[in-house]
Amino acid sequence: MELIFLGTGAGVPSKSRNVSSIALSLLQELNSIWLFDCGEATQHQILHTSIKPGKIDKIFITHLHGDHIFGLPGFLSSRSFQGGESKLTLFGPKGLQEFVETSISISASHLTYPIEFIEVCDGKVYEDEKFLIYAKKLDHGIPSYGYRVVEKDKQGSLLAEKLQAYGIEPGPIYQQIKENEKVVLDDGRTIYRKDVVGPMKKGRIITIFGDTRYKEEFIPFAMESDVIIHEATFADDKAALAAKYFHSTTVQAASIAKKANAKNLILTHISSRYQNEEEAMLLEEAKGIFPNTVIAHDFYRQTIE
Amino acid sequence: MELIFLGTGAGVPSKSRNVSSIALSLLQELNSIWLFDCGEATQHQILHTSIKPGKIDKIFITHLHGDHIFGLPGFLSSRSFQGGESKLTLFGPKGLQEFVETSISISASHLTYPIEFIEVCDGKVYEDEKFLIYAKKLDHGIPSYGYRVVEKDKQGSLLAEKLQAYGIEPGPIYQQIKENEKVVLDDGRTIYRKDVVGPMKKGRIITIFGDTRYKEEFIPFAMESDVIIHEATFADDKAALAAKYFHSTTVQAASIAKKANAKNLILTHISSRYQNEEEAMLLEEAKGIFPNTVIAHDFYRQTIE
Repeated sequence: MELIFLGTGAGVPSKSRNVSSIALSLLQELNSIWLFDCGEATQHQILHTSIKPGKIDKIFITHLHGDHIFGLPGFLSSRSFQGGESKLTLFGPKGLQEFVETSISISASHLTYPIEFIEVCDGKVYEDEKFLIYAKKLDHGIPSYGYRVVEKDKQGSLLAEKLQAYGIEPGPIYQQIKENEKVVLDDGRTIYRKDVVGPMKKGRIITIFGDTRYKEEFIPFAMESDVIIHEATFADDKAALAAKYFHSTTVQAASIAKKANAKNLILTHISSRYQNEEEAMLLEEAKGIFPNTVIAHDFYRQTIE
Repeated sequence: MELIFLGTGAGVPSKSRNVSSIALSLLQELNSIWLFDCGEATQHQILHTSIKPGKIDKIFITHLHGDHIFGLPGFLSSRSFQGGESKLTLFGPKGLQEFVETSISISASHLTYPIEFIEVCDGKVYEDEKFLIYAKKLDHGIPSYGYRVVEKDKQGSLLAEKLQAYGIEPGPIYQQIKENEKVVLDDGRTIYRKDVVGPMKKGRIITIFGDTRYKEEFIPFAMESDVIIHEATFADDKAALAAKYFHSTTVQAASIAKKANAKNLILTHISSRYQNEEEAMLLEEAKGIFPNTVIAHDFYRQTIE
């Protein structure tokens, strides 16, 4: 499970930050990669990573502002051009399907794979055997959603000393015991999995906020996250401007992380008004409230253990 | 008058060539810049040039394939974000207006300037005091147009020795004579401009082909161009593939330039199958037919005297 930031700027691309997109690599868990937002030139950014577009099978759009969606038509077309055949599911607010279908149709693009559209609203938007995803409407003038990615708790590890106490030697039988609630041995004894595995492993939680104003009521949505990714378009002294334009400040993002008892906070969607040398200031503001904060830059990667 | 190539690749962006866009800088002539096509990330390419988006007041779209238009919504939004207020005129085939309006509307972009849409068909599509532009439908499966930009012939230079023969000394009177067909001097004499200027200066002609198959019938459209810009998606040995996909080869592009008696040929829209080291081969193929050929790369500039 690894986060790869493809675009970390706000509104318009700059030489140092592209517009919004984040990849969540689940190659180990599901052999797939999910994208969160797809600003213009996301496919260009991907060219500079090891990400294979064909592995991206889900895209979650937080909201329909151009800096979060204008890379979709090009990404979808190129994924097809490169021979992608597996279904792609697009999650997002109402209007997303019309934008994509109009772009694909007017450009006479013939996709080699099907697209499924899921219009999100508050609540569970996806579940498979390993993950649950919830959406939550934020406060951004137009519908904007956060996504909470919850990994289901995983089976504990087999405890070798307990198996050996039963007289069971390592071999294919270990895998059988791991995969079944109970296994009958050749000698007739029944082994219950619960007796030979350690405690369940807690699944990881990542909460990705779309663009939004700060509101206390969003805290429960992000509770106990391993990582919160939150926009910080403005510095603390621009709180009025942030409110006016439906955005957040460094300090507001850090307050969310602190009150949600998160382990880590990654700030993104940084306004181009802040030059490299001002980033230390932005980071200090956030760390004053929530020490485990980093500011993402394009191609920043973070493994989530 | 300067051409600046912003994207010179075909179909999908690569690390070395972005998708299609060409800027024609007319800063000296009209204090404006025109774009021809606007593939995804054209606005990103512009960040690496001295081009001011606000100076771009006309965009000519050859055809609606994604690699020629998917940069439009982002470019238009950013031009607005940066405070552009002057009208922008978009020329292109039917469908362009729907694509742009849907993208702008669904992304809730509020442009600070008006857009005028001109749906092109064969014939004259634009005229001002200095330029004429003609469009010509090509052969690309979907409607694809070439644009012939014709600069009107310009007044010849004032001939100082003739003015001095009339006893007229250099001063503001020179400008008056240049700007009027005749001028009455303080001493009552009438000076006719035609008597004191050199021959008319021939205006320059640039013909920009959209994606197309080779057809003899397109030659008249490009006749006597100072510069022809033509796609060369494939090498000469891929003529069958070029025909199948409605594209042209190096040799076909060069034949157009030769038969049209052009002065220069610039090849663009180069397939990513050709690596840097193969470009010399592509260039040699074209030069075998038409020696004054260059292959454009991203950010290639050519001044047209």
